[in-house]
Amino acid sequence: MVGLAIVGFGSIGREHASSIVKLSEAELVGVYDVSYEARRFAREKYGVKSYGKLEELLRDPSVDGVVVCTPPYIHAEVCSKAAQAGKHVFCEKPLTASWDDALKLRDVVRSSGIKFMTGFVLRYFPVYVEVEKLLSTGKLGKVYSVLLTDAGGLYPLGAGDFRRFKRLNAGIGEQLIHEVDALRFLAGDAAKVYARGGRFKHEVLDYEDNIVILATMENGAIGTILGSLTAKLYRRDGYLICENGTVAFDLRNSTVEARIDGEEFKVKPERNNPFLDEMRDFVSWLKTGKKPKATFEDGFKAQEILEAAYRSIEESREVILPLS
Amino acid sequence: MVGLAIVGFGSIGREHASSIVKLSEAELVGVYDVSYEARRFAREKYGVKSYGKLEELLRDPSVDGVVVCTPPYIHAEVCSKAAQAGKHVFCEKPLTASWDDALKLRDVVRSSGIKFMTGFVLRYFPVYVEVEKLLSTGKLGKVYSVLLTDAGGLYPLGAGDFRRFKRLNAGIGEQLIHEVDALRFLAGDAAKVYARGGRFKHEVLDYEDNIVILATMENGAIGTILGSLTAKLYRRDGYLICENGTVAFDLRNSTVEARIDGEEFKVKPERNNPFLDEMRDFVSWLKTGKKPKATFEDGFKAQEILEAAYRSIEESREVILPLS
Repeated sequence: MVGLAIVGFGSIGREHASSIVKLSEAELVGVYDVSYEARRFAREKYGVKSYGKLEELLRDPSVDGVVVCTPPYIHAEVCSKAAQAGKHVFCEKPLTASWDDALKLRDVVRSSGIKFMTGFVLRYFPVYVEVEKLLSTGKLGKVYSVLLTDAGGLYPLGAGDFRRFKRLNAGIGEQLIHEVDALRFLAGDAAKVYARGGRFKHEVLDYEDNIVILATMENGAIGTILGSLTAKLYRRDGYLICENGTVAFDLRNSTVEARIDGEEFKVKPERNNPFLDEMRDFVSWLKTGKKPKATFEDGFKAQEILEAAYRSIEESREVILPLS
Repeated sequence: MVGLAIVGFGSIGREHASSIVKLSEAELVGVYDVSYEARRFAREKYGVKSYGKLEELLRDPSVDGVVVCTPPYIHAEVCSKAAQAGKHVFCEKPLTASWDDALKLRDVVRSSGIKFMTGFVLRYFPVYVEVEKLLSTGKLGKVYSVLLTDAGGLYPLGAGDFRRFKRLNAGIGEQLIHEVDALRFLAGDAAKVYARGGRFKHEVLDYEDNIVILATMENGAIGTILGSLTAKLYRRDGYLICENGTVAFDLRNSTVEARIDGEEFKVKPERNNPFLDEMRDFVSWLKTGKKPKATFEDGFKAQEILEAAYRSIEESREVILPLS
C-alpha cells in the first residue's frame, strides 16, 4: 500500500483525493492546507488526518508520497522540502512559477534521489492516448510540423487571486504548459524558441493573454502553439504533419482523424478518467518502479520552453536551448 | 467596353478568359502564349487574336489591360513591359518570384501611373467575403491574434516544372501568399516577421515544403500562418481572435462560425464564382475608377512578408519591415 498526502486542498487537490481513494494500492493518509475550511473538509469527507503544519506531514512515516496541489509559486518550496524529507513527489503543473525556482528545484530533486512525477494530465486524455498509440506504431514516420491550440476565455482567477500575477502563476503558461508538454511529447525536445504575445484585454492580469510560440525541435520539426485567454470560440486541438501521415485531433469533441499511408480513418476514443489514470501511474511508479508518462525532467523541460518563450517575447529574438 | 488580353494561357489564363467573356463590359481581345498549342486553343475556343510576340500584344490599341498569367518568374518582365506600354495590368499572384523583381517592378509601376491589380482571388471566396463583412461592421473590435493554415499535398508541378524551383516560383509562397495577403487583409501591415521551415519530404523541390510564419503586425496583433505541401489531411482555415469576438472559418466546407458580443452563430455563405467576381472588380476599376480589393501595393506587401519569412528562416532571426 502506498501512503499519499495532499498539500493544497483546492479544486485540483480534491480531484486527486477522489482518485487516490479509488485506487486499491494507495491510501490517502492526510491533507495539509493553509485554510482551516479546506482541512476540515478533508477530515469530514475522507476521514483522514489534517496536519497543522507542512513539516508534520513530512515527518509522518506513513506518507510515502506527497501530492503537491498548491498555487504554482509555492510548488518549488513544498517539493524541495518533500524531496529533502525523502518523500516521493507528484507535483501539479506547471512545475514552478519561475525559471529560477525550476533550476533550484532541479538540484534538490537530483540530489535527493526521490521519484518525482509532473501532473501533465493532458497526456492521459483519450485523444492524446490515441495519438500516442498512433505514434508508437512508427507508421507515421518523422514529425515535420505540429500545431497545437488552447484558446478560450479567462480561467477562474482562483483563491487569493494568485492567477493574476505571472510571478505566482507562470502567466498564460499555467494552462498552456499542457500544450508545451504535448509538443515535446509529440516532437521531442526543442532546440530554439521564438514567441510573440501581449496582454491585449484582461487588465486584471499582469501577463500575456494571447501568445504564439514557434519552436524548432532538435529533430528539425516545427512546433507551433497558440494560446489565448480572450478567445470566445473555445478551441483546443492539434494537427500533426508527419512523413507518412497526418493526424488532426480535437479535445473538445474528443476525436482523432488521421490519414496514414493512404488510409483515412476517424476514431472517437473511449472515455476514461484522465486524473484517475494519472494517479494510478504515480502509485504504480512507487510500487513497481514503472515510470509514469511525465517525470521531473518533463516538467523541467516544458518550463524551460515556456521561459524561453517569455524571454523571446521580452527581447524580441530567438532563444537557444538549453537555458542552463 | 474594356479590351483585355491574356499573357500566358495555361490553366489560370483559361480560367480568366472564361470570366472575361462573361462580363458585359469587357472584351477578350487576344492571347499571347509561348506555346503554339495554347495560342491555337485560344483562337479556336474564343475566336480571338493570338499574338506572335508579346510586343505585338502591347502595341495593340484595342488592349486596355493585360492579364498576366505566366509562371511567377516571368511576371515582373511582362508587367513592366505592359506598364511601360501604358497598359493596365491584372497580375496573378504571387506578384513576383523574387524580392529584387518586386522592387524593380515597383519603380516601373509607380512611374507609369497605370492601374495594377494583384490576383488575390482568395479575397473573393465566399468565406472571406463573409469575414470581411463581419470585420467591416466594426463589432469585432481590435484584432488580437490570427491563425491561418493552408496544408495539403504537393500542387501539380505544372508545365516546364517551374514549380520545382524557388527562384521561378516563390517557393511554397506561390500558394501560401494567399494566406499572407489574408493576414494583411485581416490584421493590417506587418512590423516584424519570424519564420521556420524546411524541405522535409519533396526532393523534387528546391524549397521548403513546410513553413510557419509568425508575424507581429503594426497594430500589435499576432499573425500565424502554417503552410504545408506534405500534409495528408487537407486543411485551409482561419481563426480570428478579436476584442469583442472570435471568428473561425473553414475554406474546405465554406463555413464561418462566430461569437461576437455573446451572440454565437454559424453561416454558410452563398456560393459564387470568385474568379468572375475578381475579374469584374478589375474591369470595374478600369471603367469607373472604383478600386479593387487588391492593388499593386497589396501584392508588393505580401511579397515583402514572404521575403522576410525566407530571410528569417535562412538567418534564424526576426526580420524587421519594411525591407526597403
